[in-house]
Amino acid sequence: MKGYVFHGAGQSAWEEVPDPAIKEPTDAIVRVGAVTICGTDLHILKGDVPEVRPGTVLGHEAVGEIVEVGSDVRTVRPGDRALVSCITACGRCSYCRQGTYGQCRGGGGWILGHLIDGTQAEYVRVPYADLSVHPLPGAMDSKDAVLLADIFPTSYEVGVLNGHVRPGSTVVVVGAGPIGLAAIGTARLFSPERIVAVDLAAARLEAARQFGADAVADARETPEQLVADLTDGLGADVVIEAVGVPESFELCTRMVRPGGHVANVGVHGAPATLHLEDLWIKNITITTGLVDTYSTPTLLRMTAAGRLPTSRLVTHTFPLEHMEEAYDVFAHAADTGALKVVLGGQQHEVVAVGAA
Amino acid sequence: MKGYVFHGAGQSAWEEVPDPAIKEPTDAIVRVGAVTICGTDLHILKGDVPEVRPGTVLGHEAVGEIVEVGSDVRTVRPGDRALVSCITACGRCSYCRQGTYGQCRGGGGWILGHLIDGTQAEYVRVPYADLSVHPLPGAMDSKDAVLLADIFPTSYEVGVLNGHVRPGSTVVVVGAGPIGLAAIGTARLFSPERIVAVDLAAARLEAARQFGADAVADARETPEQLVADLTDGLGADVVIEAVGVPESFELCTRMVRPGGHVANVGVHGAPATLHLEDLWIKNITITTGLVDTYSTPTLLRMTAAGRLPTSRLVTHTFPLEHMEEAYDVFAHAADTGALKVVLGGQQHEVVAVGAA
Repeated sequence: MKGYVFHGAGQSAWEEVPDPAIKEPTDAIVRVGAVTICGTDLHILKGDVPEVRPGTVLGHEAVGEIVEVGSDVRTVRPGDRALVSCITACGRCSYCRQGTYGQCRGGGGWILGHLIDGTQAEYVRVPYADLSVHPLPGAMDSKDAVLLADIFPTSYEVGVLNGHVRPGSTVVVVGAGPIGLAAIGTARLFSPERIVAVDLAAARLEAARQFGADAVADARETPEQLVADLTDGLGADVVIEAVGVPESFELCTRMVRPGGHVANVGVHGAPATLHLEDLWIKNITITTGLVDTYSTPTLLRMTAAGRLPTSRLVTHTFPLEHMEEAYDVFAHAADTGALKVVLGGQQHEVVAVGAA
Repeated sequence: MKGYVFHGAGQSAWEEVPDPAIKEPTDAIVRVGAVTICGTDLHILKGDVPEVRPGTVLGHEAVGEIVEVGSDVRTVRPGDRALVSCITACGRCSYCRQGTYGQCRGGGGWILGHLIDGTQAEYVRVPYADLSVHPLPGAMDSKDAVLLADIFPTSYEVGVLNGHVRPGSTVVVVGAGPIGLAAIGTARLFSPERIVAVDLAAARLEAARQFGADAVADARETPEQLVADLTDGLGADVVIEAVGVPESFELCTRMVRPGGHVANVGVHGAPATLHLEDLWIKNITITTGLVDTYSTPTLLRMTAAGRLPTSRLVTHTFPLEHMEEAYDVFAHAADTGALKVVLGGQQHEVVAVGAA
C-alpha cells in the first residue's frame, strides 16, 4: 500500500510501504477513507518530536472502513464505518479506569503516527480497537467526522471543559487557528456572555467572528486592555491558550480574573515565565493536557444533530494520494488560508459511500 | 493603647497609638486577648509589601473579646469571645456571593495589618464584623483558636482542598514550616496513602514526622527520586508548595504525576519558570490562592473536637507587650526553633478566661 513516511527532519514522502496486519487479538485494520493533517505532524516533520522514528507512517486522525478485526474485538466488525481516534486506550490501566485515556499506561495514549504507524496511508492497524475506534452513522460526512478524531475533542476537553466555561462566562481564546476556532465553537455550547478571540492574523480573526467570537483583538494591540474594558477591570473568567509559545501563555495569565482559569491547549517547545509574584494571591487555576477523547461519543451525537461547526473548518480537500501537495498547502497556511485540509472524504472516496 | 507600628522598611515599634473607634455601623471593636505573627508580617517589615503605609498597626490574626459593635452588627455582641479572621468580607460583592471572600471587592479581603490597622495591639477595629469574626466556645484555648485566623484555613483551603487530596493520595509537601506542617495535619483528614515532607532543615523534617509525614526528604538530595520510587515512577497525586521561592515551585512541578495537582500556598516575590515543554502533555492542574476562610467554621468544630494539631505548632508564648521580643524570636526561627509564637493567650491574659 501507499503511506506518508517520515524519514527524519525535513524528509518525508508518499511511498510504498508494507500492508499492516493484525498483530494482537485486540487490533483492527481500517481502510482509510478520509484523513487530515495536524499541526503536530508539522512539528514531527521539523524534527521537534524526537521519539518519532524514521520510517514511521504519520497521521493520527481518520475515518474509514473496518476490514479485519482480531479475535477479541467486540464493538466493530468488518464492513463497519468508523472513526479512528487520535488516542488509543487499553481500558485496563489505572489511567484508563479513570477515563484519562490520553495518559494510558497499558501501551495506548497517543501512539498512532507517533510510536507506531499512523493513519496517513491506505490502511492502518489500530490497537485496542474496542476503545480506540467509534462506529459512525452512514449519513455523517467524512469531512465532519474526521475532525472528531482529535481537534474537536482536544479543544472541548482541554480548553472548554478544563477551563470551566459556564453560562455567563467571559472567555478569551488566544490563537484563532483550527484549535482556537474549534474552542470557540464548543465554548458556545455553554452560552458564555462573550468570547474574545486574539490572534496576529486579520484573516483568522475574521474566521473567529464567523465561528462565534463576539469581539476580536490583534495580539500586538494590548488585548489585555480590551478584556479589562469588557469586564469592569476584572479580567476573563476563562482564557484558552491555543498557540503554544511562551509569549502567548504569558499573555493568557495577564488576562485572567482573580479566581479564573487558564486552560493551556497549545503544544509547547519551550518554558514560559510564570509570574507567581502577581498570581500567588489571585486564586488562579492553570491546566494543561493531552486530549483523553472521553467526549468523542458526545461530540459525535452533537455533530449528527448539526450542533457543531465541524465542516466549516475544512478549507481544502484532496484525493488521498495528493498527500504531499496537501502538506504543502497546510504548512503554508498564512498564504493559502488553510484551516483544516481533508484528504479522501466523500467527494474523493471511490468506495466508502457505497459501503456505508 | 499600645500597638506594633510599621514605620517603613526595617523600622517598627510597640508604641502608643490612638484607640480605635467604630467608623461604620458594620464595625466591631475587639479587645485583643491573643495574637500571633505571620511570615507575611516579616515580609512587610522588610519592605516587600509596598501597599502597607508607614504608621499602620500590623497583624491579621487574633482572638479577643468584643467590646463594642456598630448598629448593623447581628452575629456578635459585647462580651462575646471571638476569633478575628485574617480575611474581612463585605458579603455582598460578586466574589463574596461565591464564597471567595479573599478576593472581596467591597472593601474587604486581606485588609487588617495591610490596608488598615491590624491586630497586634490592645484593641482592633474589625470592619464587616458579621462575616469577619467568629464567636468562640469559651472552652477553646486561645493558643489553638488563634491559629484558625489564617494558617490552618490557608493550609487547608489553598493547599489541601485546592490540591484535591483524596483517600489513597500520595501527597508531597514542600516546605515544613508552620504552613507546611498545618498542610500535613489537615491533609491527614483525607486518609492519604502517604505524605512526604521536603525541607532543607533537619529539625523541620523531624517536626514534619511528628505532624504525620510518612517520609521526609532533604531538598538538596533529589526528592524527585524518592517520590518516583514510592509511586512506581509516576509522581505524586498532589504537591503542595509551602515555601514561596521559584526553585521550590519548580521542584513541585517535577514531582507531580500526569493528571496530578500542584497547589501553591507560598507567597512569592519573583517569577518561576514553568516548563510547558514537559507539562503541556501531562494534564497537570496548578492552583494559586489567597485564603478565603470559608472553612473556618468547620475547622473551629474540628479543633473543638480535638481533631487538629493546632497548639502543637506553638513553640513560644509571650505577654502581649513583649511584641518586639516575640518578633525577634520568630524572625530567627533557624536559631530559636520557633514555629508559631503566640502573644497573650490564657497564661498571659489577665481578663479573658474570666470573661469567657
